[in-house]
Amino acid sequence: MRVGELSKRSGVPVPTIKYYLREGLLPAGVLTSPNQAHYDDEHLRRLRLVRALVDVGGLSIASVREVLAAIDTRDQSLHKKLGAVQEAISQPGPVDLDPLAVEDVQAFFARQGERECVDVTESNVTHMLAAALSAARSVGHDHFRELLDPYLEGLKIIAQADLEYIARRGSADAVIEGMVVGTLIGDAVLKAVRRLAHAQVSREVLGDSAALPKVNG
Amino acid sequence: MRVGELSKRSGVPVPTIKYYLREGLLPAGVLTSPNQAHYDDEHLRRLRLVRALVDVGGLSIASVREVLAAIDTRDQSLHKKLGAVQEAISQPGPVDLDPLAVEDVQAFFARQGERECVDVTESNVTHMLAAALSAARSVGHDHFRELLDPYLEGLKIIAQADLEYIARRGSADAVIEGMVVGTLIGDAVLKAVRRLAHAQVSREVLGDSAALPKVNG
Repeated sequence: MRVGELSKRSGVPVPTIKYYLREGLLPAGVLTSPNQAHYDDEHLRRLRLVRALVDVGGLSIASVREVLAAIDTRDQSLHKKLGAVQEAISQPGPVDLDPLAVEDVQAFFARQGERECVDVTESNVTHMLAAALSAARSVGHDHFRELLDPYLEGLKIIAQADLEYIARRGSADAVIEGMVVGTLIGDAVLKAVRRLAHAQVSREVLGDSAALPKVNG
Repeated sequence: MRVGELSKRSGVPVPTIKYYLREGLLPAGVLTSPNQAHYDDEHLRRLRLVRALVDVGGLSIASVREVLAAIDTRDQSLHKKLGAVQEAISQPGPVDLDPLAVEDVQAFFARQGERECVDVTESNVTHMLAAALSAARSVGHDHFRELLDPYLEGLKIIAQADLEYIARRGSADAVIEGMVVGTLIGDAVLKAVRRLAHAQVSREVLGDSAALPKVNG
Protein backbone atom coordinates (compact mmCIF):
# COMPACT_ATOMS: atom_id res chain seq x y z
CA MET A 1 0.00 0.00 0.00
CA ARG A 2 1.06 3.62 -0.45
CA VAL A 3 1.53 6.02 2.45
CA GLY A 4 -2.00 7.45 2.03
CA GLU A 5 -3.53 3.99 2.43
CA LEU A 6 -1.25 3.29 5.41
CA SER A 7 -2.52 6.52 6.99
CA LYS A 8 -6.14 5.63 6.28
CA ARG A 9 -5.87 2.12 7.68
CA SER A 10 -3.96 3.14 10.79
CA GLY A 11 -5.70 6.45 11.50
CA VAL A 12 -2.27 8.10 11.77
CA PRO A 13 -1.87 11.31 9.67
CA VAL A 14 0.66 11.20 6.79
CA PRO A 15 2.96 13.90 8.31
CA THR A 16 3.15 11.88 11.53
CA ILE A 17 4.04 8.74 9.56
CA LYS A 18 6.79 10.66 7.76
CA TYR A 19 8.09 11.88 11.11
CA TYR A 20 8.21 8.31 12.46
CA LEU A 21 10.03 7.22 9.28
CA ARG A 22 12.64 9.99 9.73
CA GLU A 23 13.09 9.05 13.40
CA GLY A 24 13.62 5.40 12.44
CA LEU A 25 10.57 4.18 14.40
CA LEU A 26 9.11 2.75 11.22
CA PRO A 27 11.27 0.88 8.67
CA ALA A 28 11.43 2.50 5.23
CA GLY A 29 9.06 1.21 2.58
CA VAL A 30 10.22 -0.39 -0.68
CA LEU A 31 10.76 2.34 -3.26
CA THR A 32 8.64 1.76 -6.37
CA SER A 33 9.71 5.07 -7.93
CA PRO A 34 12.04 7.83 -6.72
CA ASN A 35 9.13 9.55 -4.93
CA GLN A 36 6.96 6.63 -3.97
CA ALA A 37 7.33 3.84 -1.45
CA HIS A 38 5.30 0.72 -0.87
CA TYR A 39 4.30 -0.42 2.65
CA ASP A 40 2.91 -3.76 3.81
CA ASP A 41 0.94 -5.16 6.78
CA GLU A 42 4.09 -5.34 8.86
CA HIS A 43 4.45 -1.57 8.55
CA LEU A 44 0.81 -1.19 9.56
CA ARG A 45 1.28 -3.31 12.71
CA ARG A 46 4.47 -1.50 13.66
CA LEU A 47 2.76 1.87 13.09
CA ARG A 48 -0.11 0.87 15.38
CA LEU A 49 2.38 -0.18 18.03
CA VAL A 50 4.31 3.12 17.78
CA ARG A 51 1.06 5.08 18.02
CA ALA A 52 -0.02 3.10 21.12
CA LEU A 53 3.35 3.76 22.79
CA VAL A 54 3.30 7.47 21.93
CA ASP A 55 -0.39 8.37 22.23
CA VAL A 56 -1.65 5.95 24.87
CA GLY A 57 1.63 5.32 26.71
CA GLY A 58 2.89 8.91 26.54
CA LEU A 59 6.42 7.67 25.78
CA SER A 60 9.08 9.94 24.30
CA ILE A 61 10.47 9.12 20.87
CA ALA A 62 13.74 8.02 22.52
CA SER A 63 11.85 5.62 24.82
CA VAL A 64 9.85 4.23 21.89
CA ARG A 65 13.12 3.56 20.08
CA GLU A 66 14.42 1.62 23.11
CA VAL A 67 11.20 -0.38 23.42
CA LEU A 68 11.30 -1.29 19.71
CA ALA A 69 14.94 -2.39 20.03
CA ALA A 70 13.92 -4.70 22.91
CA ILE A 71 11.06 -6.12 20.85
CA ASP A 72 13.28 -6.71 17.82
CA THR A 73 15.87 -8.67 19.79
CA ARG A 74 15.68 -12.20 18.42
CA ASP A 75 17.05 -14.12 21.38
CA GLN A 76 14.46 -13.07 23.98
CA SER A 77 11.27 -14.79 24.98
CA LEU A 78 7.93 -13.05 24.44
CA HIS A 79 7.44 -13.07 28.24
CA LYS A 80 10.67 -11.08 28.68
CA LYS A 81 9.75 -8.67 25.88
CA LEU A 82 6.35 -8.04 27.45
CA GLY A 83 8.11 -7.41 30.76
CA ALA A 84 10.48 -4.87 29.16
CA VAL A 85 7.58 -2.98 27.56
CA GLN A 86 5.59 -3.08 30.80
CA GLU A 87 8.52 -1.47 32.60
CA ALA A 88 8.72 1.27 29.97
CA ILE A 89 5.04 2.19 30.32
CA SER A 90 4.97 2.05 34.15
CA GLN A 91 6.28 5.21 35.72
CA PRO A 92 6.08 5.43 39.51
CA GLY A 93 4.55 8.63 40.89
CA PRO A 94 6.71 11.35 42.47
CA VAL A 95 6.01 10.14 46.01
CA ASP A 96 8.74 9.91 48.67
CA LEU A 97 9.10 6.29 49.67
CA ASP A 98 8.21 5.41 53.26
CA PRO A 99 10.68 2.74 54.51
CA LEU A 100 7.75 0.89 56.14
CA ALA A 101 5.91 0.80 52.80
CA VAL A 102 9.06 -0.64 51.24
CA GLU A 103 8.99 -3.36 53.91
CA ASP A 104 5.31 -4.01 53.09
CA VAL A 105 6.26 -4.65 49.46
CA GLN A 106 9.14 -6.93 50.44
CA ALA A 107 6.89 -8.92 52.80
CA PHE A 108 4.28 -9.23 50.04
CA PHE A 109 6.91 -10.63 47.67
CA ALA A 110 8.09 -13.08 50.32
CA ARG A 111 4.47 -14.28 50.88
CA GLN A 112 4.09 -14.84 47.13
CA GLY A 113 7.24 -16.97 47.10
CA GLU A 114 8.67 -14.50 44.59
CA ARG A 115 12.37 -13.80 44.25
CA GLU A 116 13.53 -11.38 46.92
CA CYS A 117 12.82 -7.77 46.15
CA VAL A 118 15.74 -6.14 47.90
CA ASP A 119 15.68 -2.80 46.11
CA VAL A 120 12.10 -1.87 45.18
CA THR A 121 13.32 0.95 42.92
CA GLU A 122 15.10 -1.57 40.68
CA SER A 123 11.81 -2.10 38.85
CA ASN A 124 9.28 0.60 37.97
CA VAL A 125 6.45 -1.75 38.92
CA THR A 126 7.66 -2.47 42.47
CA HIS A 127 8.62 1.20 42.82
CA MET A 128 5.04 2.12 41.79
CA LEU A 129 3.62 -0.23 44.42
CA ALA A 130 5.89 1.13 47.18
CA ALA A 131 4.93 4.71 46.15
CA ALA A 132 1.20 3.91 46.37
CA LEU A 133 1.57 2.26 49.79
CA SER A 134 3.67 5.24 50.94
CA ALA A 135 0.83 7.57 49.90
CA ALA A 136 -1.61 5.45 51.93
CA ARG A 137 0.68 5.56 54.97
CA SER A 138 1.08 9.34 54.64
CA VAL A 139 -2.65 9.72 55.34
CA GLY A 140 -2.63 7.24 58.22
CA HIS A 141 -3.61 4.09 56.31
CA ASP A 142 -0.84 1.80 57.55
CA HIS A 143 -3.03 -1.28 57.13
CA PHE A 144 -3.52 -0.90 53.41
CA ARG A 145 -0.92 -3.66 52.99
CA GLU A 146 -3.57 -6.14 54.13
CA LEU A 147 -5.40 -5.56 50.86
CA LEU A 148 -2.48 -6.70 48.70
CA ASP A 149 -3.30 -10.42 48.87
CA PRO A 150 -7.01 -10.11 47.95
CA TYR A 151 -6.06 -7.56 45.27
CA LEU A 152 -3.64 -10.04 43.70
CA GLU A 153 -6.27 -12.79 43.87
CA GLY A 154 -8.81 -10.68 41.96
CA LEU A 155 -6.20 -9.34 39.57
CA LYS A 156 -5.03 -12.81 38.56
CA ILE A 157 -8.52 -13.43 37.12
CA ILE A 158 -8.20 -10.11 35.29
CA ALA A 159 -4.63 -10.78 34.11
CA GLN A 160 -5.72 -14.15 32.70
CA ALA A 161 -8.45 -12.40 30.66
CA ASP A 162 -5.95 -9.71 29.57
CA LEU A 163 -3.46 -12.31 28.36
CA GLU A 164 -6.14 -14.22 26.44
CA TYR A 165 -7.22 -10.92 24.87
CA ILE A 166 -3.76 -10.09 23.54
CA ALA A 167 -2.78 -13.67 22.67
CA ARG A 168 -5.52 -13.79 20.03
CA ARG A 169 -3.61 -11.21 18.02
CA GLY A 170 -1.59 -12.58 15.12
CA SER A 171 1.93 -11.13 15.40
CA ALA A 172 4.41 -10.21 18.13
CA ASP A 173 3.97 -6.49 17.30
CA ALA A 174 0.19 -6.81 17.59
CA VAL A 175 0.47 -8.74 20.87
CA ILE A 176 2.71 -6.06 22.34
CA GLU A 177 0.51 -3.26 21.00
CA GLY A 178 -2.43 -5.03 22.65
CA MET A 179 -0.46 -5.20 25.90
CA VAL A 180 0.25 -1.46 25.86
CA VAL A 181 -3.35 -0.49 25.12
CA GLY A 182 -4.75 -3.22 27.37
CA THR A 183 -2.57 -2.15 30.28
CA LEU A 184 -3.02 1.61 30.05
CA ILE A 185 -6.58 1.98 28.76
CA GLY A 186 -7.35 -1.15 30.78
CA ASP A 187 -6.34 0.78 33.93
CA ALA A 188 -9.06 3.34 33.16
CA VAL A 189 -11.67 0.67 32.40
CA LEU A 190 -10.72 -1.15 35.59
CA LYS A 191 -11.09 2.05 37.64
CA ALA A 192 -14.65 2.52 36.40
CA VAL A 193 -15.69 -1.14 36.75
CA ARG A 194 -14.17 -1.14 40.25
CA ARG A 195 -16.62 1.61 41.25
CA LEU A 196 -19.52 -0.40 39.85
CA ALA A 197 -18.32 -3.45 41.82
CA HIS A 198 -18.13 -1.28 44.95
CA ALA A 199 -21.70 -0.15 44.42
CA GLN A 200 -22.92 -3.73 43.88
CA VAL A 201 -21.12 -5.14 46.92
CA SER A 202 -22.13 -2.16 49.09
CA ARG A 203 -25.79 -2.65 48.13
CA GLU A 204 -25.58 -6.40 48.84
CA VAL A 205 -23.85 -6.01 52.20
CA LEU A 206 -25.30 -2.75 53.52
CA GLY A 207 -28.71 -2.62 51.85
CA ASP A 208 -30.83 0.28 53.09
CA SER A 209 -29.46 0.21 56.60
CA ALA A 210 -28.18 3.45 58.09
CA ALA A 211 -26.00 1.55 60.57
CA LEU A 212 -22.40 0.47 60.17
CA PRO A 213 -22.02 -3.05 58.82
CA LYS A 214 -20.97 -5.94 61.05
CA VAL A 215 -17.76 -7.63 60.05
CA ASN A 216 -15.84 -10.59 61.33
CA GLY A 217 -12.40 -9.89 62.73
CA MET B 1 -7.87 18.71 72.85
CA ARG B 2 -6.62 22.11 71.74
CA VAL B 3 -5.98 23.04 68.12
CA GLY B 4 -2.25 22.24 68.41
CA GLU B 5 -3.02 18.70 69.54
CA LEU B 6 -5.64 18.35 66.79
CA SER B 7 -2.98 19.38 64.28
CA LYS B 8 -0.45 16.95 65.70
CA ARG B 9 -2.84 13.99 65.73
CA SER B 10 -4.22 14.66 62.25
CA GLY B 11 -1.01 15.80 60.57
CA VAL B 12 -2.89 18.86 59.25
CA PRO B 13 -1.12 22.22 59.92
CA VAL B 14 -2.88 24.67 62.27
CA PRO B 15 -3.41 27.38 59.57
CA THR B 16 -5.14 24.78 57.36
CA ILE B 17 -7.38 23.73 60.27
CA LYS B 18 -8.30 27.39 60.84
CA TYR B 19 -9.10 27.76 57.15
CA TYR B 20 -11.39 24.69 57.25
CA LEU B 21 -13.09 26.16 60.35
CA ARG B 22 -13.71 29.48 58.56
CA GLU B 23 -15.07 27.64 55.50
CA GLY B 24 -17.43 25.65 57.70
CA LEU B 25 -15.90 22.28 56.74
CA LEU B 26 -15.13 21.60 60.39
CA PRO B 27 -17.61 22.46 63.17
CA ALA B 28 -16.39 25.04 65.68
CA GLY B 29 -14.87 23.74 68.91
CA VAL B 30 -16.31 24.47 72.35
CA LEU B 31 -14.89 27.78 73.62
CA THR B 32 -13.10 27.29 76.94
CA SER B 33 -11.88 30.93 77.02
CA PRO B 34 -12.37 33.81 74.52
CA ASN B 35 -9.27 32.73 72.61
CA GLN B 36 -9.24 29.00 73.12
CA ALA B 37 -11.45 26.22 71.83
CA HIS B 38 -11.65 22.57 72.72
CA TYR B 39 -11.94 19.83 70.06
CA ASP B 40 -12.84 16.16 70.43
CA ASP B 41 -12.42 12.90 68.50
CA GLU B 42 -15.34 13.75 66.27
CA HIS B 43 -13.45 16.83 65.06
CA LEU B 44 -10.40 14.65 64.45
CA ARG B 45 -12.39 12.18 62.33
CA ARG B 46 -14.06 14.97 60.37
CA LEU B 47 -10.71 16.65 59.80
CA ARG B 48 -9.22 13.41 58.46
CA LEU B 49 -12.18 13.05 56.11
CA VAL B 50 -11.83 16.65 54.83
CA ARG B 51 -8.12 16.14 54.28
CA ALA B 52 -8.77 12.91 52.34
CA LEU B 53 -11.33 14.66 50.13
CA VAL B 54 -9.07 17.67 49.50
CA ASP B 55 -5.59 16.12 49.34
CA VAL B 56 -6.29 12.63 48.02
CA GLY B 57 -9.55 13.32 46.17
CA GLY B 58 -8.50 16.72 44.80
CA LEU B 59 -11.97 18.13 45.51
CA SER B 60 -12.66 21.86 45.67
CA ILE B 61 -13.83 23.38 48.96
CA ALA B 62 -17.32 23.79 47.46
CA SER B 63 -17.44 20.09 46.50
CA VAL B 64 -16.22 19.06 49.95
CA ARG B 65 -19.05 21.11 51.47
CA GLU B 66 -21.58 19.27 49.27
CA VAL B 67 -20.14 15.88 50.15
CA LEU B 68 -20.27 16.68 53.87
CA ALA B 69 -23.89 17.83 53.55
CA ALA B 70 -24.75 14.48 51.91
CA ILE B 71 -22.96 12.60 54.70
CA ASP B 72 -24.73 14.57 57.43
CA THR B 73 -28.21 13.88 56.06
CA ARG B 74 -29.89 11.73 58.68
CA ASP B 75 -32.47 9.98 56.52
CA GLN B 76 -30.11 8.31 54.07
CA SER B 77 -28.61 4.83 54.18
CA LEU B 78 -24.83 4.40 54.42
CA HIS B 79 -24.92 2.66 51.02
CA LYS B 80 -26.47 5.79 49.47
CA LYS B 81 -23.99 8.08 51.23
CA LEU B 82 -21.08 6.00 49.98
CA GLY B 83 -22.56 6.21 46.49
CA ALA B 84 -22.82 10.00 46.68
CA VAL B 85 -19.19 10.34 47.79
CA GLN B 86 -18.05 7.89 45.12
CA GLU B 87 -19.73 10.06 42.48
CA ALA B 88 -18.00 13.17 43.83
CA ILE B 89 -14.53 11.60 43.62
CA SER B 90 -15.04 9.98 40.18
CA GLN B 91 -14.51 12.45 37.38
CA PRO B 92 -14.69 11.05 33.84
CA GLY B 93 -11.81 11.97 31.55
CA PRO B 94 -12.20 14.58 28.78
CA VAL B 95 -12.78 11.94 26.08
CA ASP B 96 -15.45 12.31 23.39
CA LEU B 97 -17.93 9.49 23.83
CA ASP B 98 -18.17 6.99 20.99
CA PRO B 99 -21.85 5.96 20.56
CA LEU B 100 -20.73 2.34 20.13
CA ALA B 101 -18.88 2.49 23.46
CA VAL B 102 -22.05 3.84 25.05
CA GLU B 103 -23.88 0.79 23.64
CA ASP B 104 -21.15 -1.45 25.10
CA VAL B 105 -21.83 0.00 28.56
CA GLN B 106 -25.59 -0.40 28.17
CA ALA B 107 -25.21 -4.03 27.04
CA PHE B 108 -22.91 -4.67 30.02
CA PHE B 109 -25.56 -3.30 32.38
CA ALA B 110 -28.23 -5.42 30.74
CA ARG B 111 -26.05 -8.56 31.14
CA GLN B 112 -25.59 -7.76 34.83
CA GLY B 113 -29.35 -7.52 35.28
CA GLU B 114 -28.82 -3.94 36.45
CA ARG B 115 -31.37 -1.17 36.02
CA GLU B 116 -31.27 0.23 32.51
CA CYS B 117 -28.53 2.74 31.94
CA VAL B 118 -30.18 4.92 29.33
CA ASP B 119 -28.01 8.00 29.71
CA VAL B 120 -24.47 7.01 30.67
CA THR B 121 -23.56 10.60 31.51
CA GLU B 122 -26.15 10.63 34.29
CA SER B 123 -23.55 9.08 36.59
CA ASN B 124 -19.84 9.93 36.69
CA VAL B 125 -19.01 6.25 37.07
CA THR B 126 -20.85 5.06 33.94
CA HIS B 127 -19.57 8.14 32.09
CA MET B 128 -16.03 7.18 33.15
CA LEU B 129 -16.54 3.64 31.81
CA ALA B 130 -17.95 4.88 28.49
CA ALA B 131 -15.01 7.32 28.18
CA ALA B 132 -12.46 4.53 28.76
CA LEU B 133 -14.13 2.24 26.21
CA SER B 134 -14.28 5.17 23.75
CA ALA B 135 -10.52 5.64 24.18
CA ALA B 136 -10.00 1.93 23.44
CA ARG B 137 -12.18 2.16 20.32
CA SER B 138 -10.32 5.26 19.13
CA VAL B 139 -7.16 3.14 18.81
CA GLY B 140 -8.94 0.25 17.11
CA HIS B 141 -9.72 -1.87 20.17
CA ASP B 142 -13.43 -2.43 19.58
CA HIS B 143 -13.33 -5.75 21.40
CA PHE B 144 -12.27 -4.35 24.73
CA ARG B 145 -15.89 -4.71 25.85
CA GLU B 146 -15.29 -8.47 26.07
CA LEU B 147 -13.06 -7.83 29.09
CA LEU B 148 -15.82 -6.18 31.14
CA ASP B 149 -17.29 -9.42 32.49
CA PRO B 150 -13.99 -10.95 33.68
CA TYR B 151 -12.96 -7.53 35.05
CA LEU B 152 -16.14 -7.36 37.14
CA GLU B 153 -15.60 -10.93 38.35
CA GLY B 154 -12.09 -10.12 39.61
CA LEU B 155 -13.15 -6.73 40.98
CA LYS B 156 -15.94 -8.22 43.07
CA ILE B 157 -13.29 -10.10 45.07
CA ILE B 158 -11.43 -6.81 45.43
CA ALA B 159 -14.56 -4.81 46.34
CA GLN B 160 -15.41 -7.34 49.04
CA ALA B 161 -11.96 -6.85 50.58
CA ASP B 162 -12.31 -3.06 50.24
CA LEU B 163 -15.65 -3.06 52.03
CA GLU B 164 -14.32 -5.24 54.85
CA TYR B 165 -11.37 -2.87 55.17
CA ILE B 166 -13.54 0.22 55.63
CA ALA B 167 -16.27 -1.47 57.68
CA ARG B 168 -13.79 -2.14 60.48
CA ARG B 169 -13.61 1.60 61.10
CA GLY B 170 -15.68 2.85 64.01
CA SER B 171 -17.74 5.81 62.75
CA ALA B 172 -19.56 6.87 59.59
CA ASP B 173 -16.97 9.64 58.97
CA ALA B 174 -14.13 7.14 59.33
CA VAL B 175 -15.87 4.64 57.01
CA ILE B 176 -16.34 7.32 54.37
CA GLU B 177 -12.80 8.61 54.80
CA GLY B 178 -11.63 5.00 54.33
CA MET B 179 -13.72 4.77 51.18
CA VAL B 180 -12.17 7.92 49.69
CA VAL B 181 -8.60 6.85 50.47
CA GLY B 182 -9.30 3.20 49.62
CA THR B 183 -10.83 4.12 46.28
CA LEU B 184 -8.28 6.69 45.11
CA ILE B 185 -5.03 5.42 46.60
CA GLY B 186 -6.44 1.93 46.05
CA ASP B 187 -6.56 2.71 42.29
CA ALA B 188 -2.79 3.32 42.37
CA VAL B 189 -2.11 0.16 44.41
CA LEU B 190 -4.31 -1.82 42.06
CA LYS B 191 -2.44 -0.51 39.00
CA ALA B 192 0.86 -1.72 40.42
CA VAL B 193 -0.43 -5.10 41.62
CA ARG B 194 -2.09 -5.59 38.23
CA ARG B 195 1.33 -5.36 36.57
CA LEU B 196 2.72 -7.94 39.00
CA ALA B 197 -0.24 -10.22 38.19
CA HIS B 198 0.44 -9.72 34.47
CA ALA B 199 4.07 -10.73 34.98
CA GLN B 200 3.07 -13.83 36.99
CA VAL B 201 0.43 -14.99 34.51
CA SER B 202 2.66 -14.24 31.52
CA ARG B 203 5.46 -16.33 33.03
CA GLU B 204 3.09 -19.20 33.79
CA VAL B 205 1.47 -19.20 30.35
CA LEU B 206 4.33 -18.17 28.07
CA GLY B 207 7.39 -19.38 29.98
CA ASP B 208 10.60 -18.97 28.01
CA SER B 209 9.01 -19.58 24.64
CA ALA B 210 9.64 -17.05 21.89
CA ALA B 211 6.47 -18.13 20.07
CA LEU B 212 2.98 -16.72 20.39
CA PRO B 213 0.83 -18.56 22.91
CA LYS B 214 -1.94 -20.90 21.81
CA VAL B 215 -5.41 -19.91 22.96
CA ASN B 216 -8.81 -21.44 22.62
CA GLY B 217 -11.37 -19.46 20.67
